[in-house]
Amino acid sequence: MTDFTRTRELFDLPEGVIYLDGNSLGPLPKTARERVAREIDHGWGERLIRGWNDCGWMDLPGRVGDRIASLVGAPQGTVTAGDSTSVNLFKALTAALSASGERRIVLSDSGNFPNDLYVAQEATRALGKGYGLKVVAPEEVEAAIDETVAVLMLTEVDYRTGRLHDMKALTEKAHAAGAIALWDLCHSAGALPIDLTDADADFAVGCGYKYLNGGPGAPAFIYCKPEWAGRAAPALAGWMGHAEPFRFELDYRPDEGIGCMRVGTPPILSMVALDAALDVWDGVKIADIRTRSIELSERFTLEVEARCPGLELASPRDPARRGSQVSFRFEHGYAAMQALIAGGVIGDFRAPDIMRFGFTPLYLGMEDVLTAVDRLEDVMKRRAFEAPVYAVRAKVT
Amino acid sequence: MTDFTRTRELFDLPEGVIYLDGNSLGPLPKTARERVAREIDHGWGERLIRGWNDCGWMDLPGRVGDRIASLVGAPQGTVTAGDSTSVNLFKALTAALSASGERRIVLSDSGNFPNDLYVAQEATRALGKGYGLKVVAPEEVEAAIDETVAVLMLTEVDYRTGRLHDMKALTEKAHAAGAIALWDLCHSAGALPIDLTDADADFAVGCGYKYLNGGPGAPAFIYCKPEWAGRAAPALAGWMGHAEPFRFELDYRPDEGIGCMRVGTPPILSMVALDAALDVWDGVKIADIRTRSIELSERFTLEVEARCPGLELASPRDPARRGSQVSFRFEHGYAAMQALIAGGVIGDFRAPDIMRFGFTPLYLGMEDVLTAVDRLEDVMKRRAFEAPVYAVRAKVT
Repeated sequence: MTDFTRTRELFDLPEGVIYLDGNSLGPLPKTARERVAREIDHGWGERLIRGWNDCGWMDLPGRVGDRIASLVGAPQGTVTAGDSTSVNLFKALTAALSASGERRIVLSDSGNFPNDLYVAQEATRALGKGYGLKVVAPEEVEAAIDETVAVLMLTEVDYRTGRLHDMKALTEKAHAAGAIALWDLCHSAGALPIDLTDADADFAVGCGYKYLNGGPGAPAFIYCKPEWAGRAAPALAGWMGHAEPFRFELDYRPDEGIGCMRVGTPPILSMVALDAALDVWDGVKIADIRTRSIELSERFTLEVEARCPGLELASPRDPARRGSQVSFRFEHGYAAMQALIAGGVIGDFRAPDIMRFGFTPLYLGMEDVLTAVDRLEDVMKRRAFEAPVYAVRAKVT
Repeated sequence: MTDFTRTRELFDLPEGVIYLDGNSLGPLPKTARERVAREIDHGWGERLIRGWNDCGWMDLPGRVGDRIASLVGAPQGTVTAGDSTSVNLFKALTAALSASGERRIVLSDSGNFPNDLYVAQEATRALGKGYGLKVVAPEEVEAAIDETVAVLMLTEVDYRTGRLHDMKALTEKAHAAGAIALWDLCHSAGALPIDLTDADADFAVGCGYKYLNGGPGAPAFIYCKPEWAGRAAPALAGWMGHAEPFRFELDYRPDEGIGCMRVGTPPILSMVALDAALDVWDGVKIADIRTRSIELSERFTLEVEARCPGLELASPRDPARRGSQVSFRFEHGYAAMQALIAGGVIGDFRAPDIMRFGFTPLYLGMEDVLTAVDRLEDVMKRRAFEAPVYAVRAKVT
């Protein structure tokens, strides 16, 4: 059994804060601070340009990718870290379309993070030639998979409700229809067991700054099934994806492995923070994370439903059908969340009316969860959300 | 006159090193170390998700962009920082092509950094429909600009020889032929006076980690002439480019300013290092940088030619026709550069035979340059490049 008392000690959490927003930005692992400082002083400062070799910066995207691969059930050498999730999604999507013959439809759902729909809208618009994005309701996805679909592009966990798609079943359905399956694991990686190999996913992307705790805007990751590497060609390519970048050939010749998904020079300071943050996973079983996250979120859900009658559960009731978050609908959700945050419990809000709470056993215990419920109950009973100070909408939540 | 004794004090340079490779990776500005540590402790660690508002991370790409705008002669609000140069080039190129009607040719030259050619090759391949990249010799560019050209895509300073294109004249020629002009300023920004407005460039991209000293893999930048913003549409788009990202609309609606060139969540730790590094430019006149860089490089060139007969100048002899670097061809250039580096003078090597030296007055004085020549002369006289230890090729130089 994973020792969560030990893992909690690995993080720097501010005094008096209960953090239920690790699904948006994971907190600071102590090793990340030390590692970044070391890399600045001894890498950038001392080694200068030689750091690319001496400090292993050149291979860092692959090494970090391999560590993430272990968390998402992918073979070594099939994941690389770098760029943002959006940029990686674009690479994966255009690579998939390049291998889709005459098919023209990208199928997704209205529960997907809008960003992913934007990526697909603009990519298909730019490609022209009849390419298009078809968006259906999440529960209609399965029935919509047919022989017109080039790429099934889904996010496993709904960013608002936490609703979980069945990655393996939908991938199988896609393959049976001759389509390629591309998964966004932003709210999955580090939160629940994932087995990309068993699910037979073709491409996957995910986030470094949520459950992987890599820091604000940490590099994202991209997975490519070995048989697609160097064969399915992304529209976006650069020198770091070349088989031999430092030969400076005039013609592009993609790496035949996952390196073909690299593009430009990676942001090393952000990348080493992510690398250090992954140390936290040494000795952690992802199955234990899932078990504990369900215990925490179940207790939270039952308590909130019993004690905060104004809040309506927006997540699936069955914990097996949701990710590691629980959401509630509330008309004054934005103001209520601001009041809760002012009281030291940090969750977040998603328009129009979703109060969102993430459960992260690495640094969150049952006592935290029960205190959070107490504070939420207090906000609701005092109708703290009616205070004008909490009703002003900030740009980011 | 800029006080270069003062600016030199702003950098942490290793004892005994003469650094002639700031054109590849700028050294560590002391403020960058402090700023990153502060952002980790007080931003990520203390503010957690609230850092996006409280620490101004959300607006950081635009604020950093505005600071870079001042260095490249662009109006405020026309530059944003983020992604890699390659990704930005892809955005600019696909945006330009979207506004090019029936024209299909991207014109570039064989002196361009191969990465840029890769970006254009793969973008045009993916777009299909007859799009293609035409590569001519640098001296043939002007004559090759005709009515078939959609986009003239050039790097102002040749990464190997330092040869400078006439940005204003070539842009004028492109416009006269009805083409769009896209400039890569990787080896220009922070090295020489640039006036994007006066040159009437349509799009430009550039690097944060060379002459801007933003750290390894620092975020790059992209400029878009105001009349193109929100009108010319990049193939790559994401939520940070949406007019209102946090409304989470299902349809993409680009920001009408430079924000339309943002895509995903930016890597904040790398971005704050770049922001801090830009402090160095307070009180610095870019015209003084240019004057001093020419003094340094001219002296270096004359001394090397006089004292190192085996080396052949690969850069234009007229300093007005080159950027802030000088290159020499030498058959054993790789090994000679390794020997020079072992002796504390850091330049770099570009295949097949180019020894490259960058001149950066912010932290480099005439004494350094003369010592560097002494050491280079010594390497050549001792034929140190014949030592087997220096002949082993590393992956990055």
